[in-house]
Amino acid sequence: MTSRQEAEQLDKQDSLAAFRDRFQVTGQRVYVDGNSLGRLPTETAHSLQRLITEGWGEGLVTSWDTWIDAPTRIGDLIGSQLVGASEGEVVISDSTSVNLFKLAAGALAADAKRNVIVSDRGNFPSDLYVFQGLAASMGAELRLIDCDPVDGPQPEDLQHALDDRVALVSFSHVNYRSGAIADMESITRVAHKGGALTLWDLSHSVGAVDVRLNECEADLAVGCTYKYLSGGPGAPAFLYVRRDLQDSIVPPIWGWFGQGSQFAFDEAYLPADGIRRFLVGTPPIISLYAIETGVRLIAEAGIEALREKSTLLTSMVIEMCDEALAQLGCSVGSPRDPEQRGSHIAIKHPDAYRICRALIADKDVIPDFREPNIVRYGVPPIYTTFVETWEAMERLRDVLEEGSYRSLEDTRARVT
Amino acid sequence: MTSRQEAEQLDKQDSLAAFRDRFQVTGQRVYVDGNSLGRLPTETAHSLQRLITEGWGEGLVTSWDTWIDAPTRIGDLIGSQLVGASEGEVVISDSTSVNLFKLAAGALAADAKRNVIVSDRGNFPSDLYVFQGLAASMGAELRLIDCDPVDGPQPEDLQHALDDRVALVSFSHVNYRSGAIADMESITRVAHKGGALTLWDLSHSVGAVDVRLNECEADLAVGCTYKYLSGGPGAPAFLYVRRDLQDSIVPPIWGWFGQGSQFAFDEAYLPADGIRRFLVGTPPIISLYAIETGVRLIAEAGIEALREKSTLLTSMVIEMCDEALAQLGCSVGSPRDPEQRGSHIAIKHPDAYRICRALIADKDVIPDFREPNIVRYGVPPIYTTFVETWEAMERLRDVLEEGSYRSLEDTRARVT
Repeated sequence: MTSRQEAEQLDKQDSLAAFRDRFQVTGQRVYVDGNSLGRLPTETAHSLQRLITEGWGEGLVTSWDTWIDAPTRIGDLIGSQLVGASEGEVVISDSTSVNLFKLAAGALAADAKRNVIVSDRGNFPSDLYVFQGLAASMGAELRLIDCDPVDGPQPEDLQHALDDRVALVSFSHVNYRSGAIADMESITRVAHKGGALTLWDLSHSVGAVDVRLNECEADLAVGCTYKYLSGGPGAPAFLYVRRDLQDSIVPPIWGWFGQGSQFAFDEAYLPADGIRRFLVGTPPIISLYAIETGVRLIAEAGIEALREKSTLLTSMVIEMCDEALAQLGCSVGSPRDPEQRGSHIAIKHPDAYRICRALIADKDVIPDFREPNIVRYGVPPIYTTFVETWEAMERLRDVLEEGSYRSLEDTRARVT
Repeated sequence: MTSRQEAEQLDKQDSLAAFRDRFQVTGQRVYVDGNSLGRLPTETAHSLQRLITEGWGEGLVTSWDTWIDAPTRIGDLIGSQLVGASEGEVVISDSTSVNLFKLAAGALAADAKRNVIVSDRGNFPSDLYVFQGLAASMGAELRLIDCDPVDGPQPEDLQHALDDRVALVSFSHVNYRSGAIADMESITRVAHKGGALTLWDLSHSVGAVDVRLNECEADLAVGCTYKYLSGGPGAPAFLYVRRDLQDSIVPPIWGWFGQGSQFAFDEAYLPADGIRRFLVGTPPIISLYAIETGVRLIAEAGIEALREKSTLLTSMVIEMCDEALAQLGCSVGSPRDPEQRGSHIAIKHPDAYRICRALIADKDVIPDFREPNIVRYGVPPIYTTFVETWEAMERLRDVLEEGSYRSLEDTRARVT
């Protein structure tokens, strides 16, 4: 099993090691939840301070001359650097859920003979809620398929679910629990053969794995900026619409930021050309600008180097789980083939909830709990060290061996 | 006509004068566009810096224990202090346009026999775009009435537009061009008699005029936080749903922040109790927290004192327009009765666009241009001085007298 010394050695050899210094890291806390909320890039704190006091405080409304292009400018940055899209195909807008609604509703409206959305029961719940809302309000039908909980949706799962009523196939590119990567290219091919469009949720993949939207001929996508991109809590999301679909996918929410001549204040809505038409209202500029530095850092590190390190980190988690934690009741709930998984690992244990509470309260380790039995460890390679990952596993072993988690309360019943 | 000395005297007597020091004010710039983007409260810059480095940078994902309640906490602050709502009736969420969509769609779905939305042709264009989107996608019909461009919608205008197919009546409380205040109470009464619900856009009234949603028996409302509330560029909006309607108005966009047991990750969407069900995705926390200080400042100043000062400021604008600018081609495009207007004034001139350009380029005055012929001066009473307002009018007179604006280009044709 990996020793602390070996982990230290891996850190010494890490070509990305210097990137950690460009994020705020304080104390001895072990943070393995950067796939939920990414760490703060130091430069982001400075650039936001400038934005607030100079852009807003001093420039006031005149700063809109610059701000107005930020949704497409940062969108293009994500598009070209991180998700394999062309210029003018990605824009920052709203939340991931609102964007899912906009694009799914647009896809449903594009073909009156097709009203079915296919997704998998293991998809992120908020995605399923969006589709249920469309079913309740716009005559859509949601067809959920049961996929392997570890490996996620496969092309052959989809084949059985398609017919000539399916308008849209929507999966997460990386599953939020197991971390399994869906085969975007094959699934898109199967969907297209069945006459359906694809809508990908990239929230757990962008910045962690190689995303090739154009190459896979993906139609639509949405994604989150506050996970691997370190865009800050609740930073607005992005959406992607393949260029040749931008005229035919018409979301139902129209607003002045999607209007062609925004400041002409014309009475009739005439959508802007291209990706701008997928905007709606005024974007939250401070939260939006917070995205940029994180995106640039990921692009600078390079997705290839990040993937390589990510694979080593997640492999270490799996190895330590197998060798030290299996005998304490844990099992791996993620794909064992590194090609098949993103940058987080599901560690299963029947008492996962209370174990997570103990890790936080007693061991200064921040994991994430995912229902019903998963301790989720995310290891964003840009700032996570091998020693930190090693510590996360060691402290988990301590919690399991000490058994103090058993005396903690299960506070899950709280309905917010 | 008011002299500079008299304006200085009014500033000396101003009981709200000290509030200006709590906003960032630099240089000699005259800012009369705070009704488009409110000035930065000094405390907001500090609190955001703490939020970024301590909340996000240090607390990381654990800060969500606090952040999760911010939409309802700040919503209640606006509800109780500024718009006359009860606890649990206001929440911060999305943009104004997205909230309009959510509430209007919910109102339309509530009664299958009614599908007409009534609004006025002079309403803010983005509101009209939202309704046009609903007409295109959800079978709604938009019925626009032509109201007086200065006085805005009157109860009797509405009476003619109502029939048993009208589901919803939606107006701006304060018109974005003329500043006219709509009679919320009478209009709501007329709408209710016709069996329709009301949806108010409070963007240009919240923080500027007294809003009494409960007292007027208003059903639904949305509003902007970056104008009089100084919430920062594109800060998320708020929405209001009267408590007894919260179960029957079901927006079509469902997401995990509206789910009852958000972190149970249940497959089926079961909306949270109360106003939380109107949330959708993860809110942009930094932009959301930026709202709080501005709201508290407005509440501390008190809407009564603010209204009194606002009336004096807008009266000065009108008086100076009449006495010095009328002979130079200007006229007042706002109600002359102070009871009937908000905190901005429309100054009409055939060359308004180029005059605005000259004010910005040559006179360091920041107004807003509104199509087709309006120089709009907003005078948020919490930080606008009488001298600043006086200067704005004097410099406008200079521009008109010098006539240099005539050599500027009209760059309006640019379609964004």
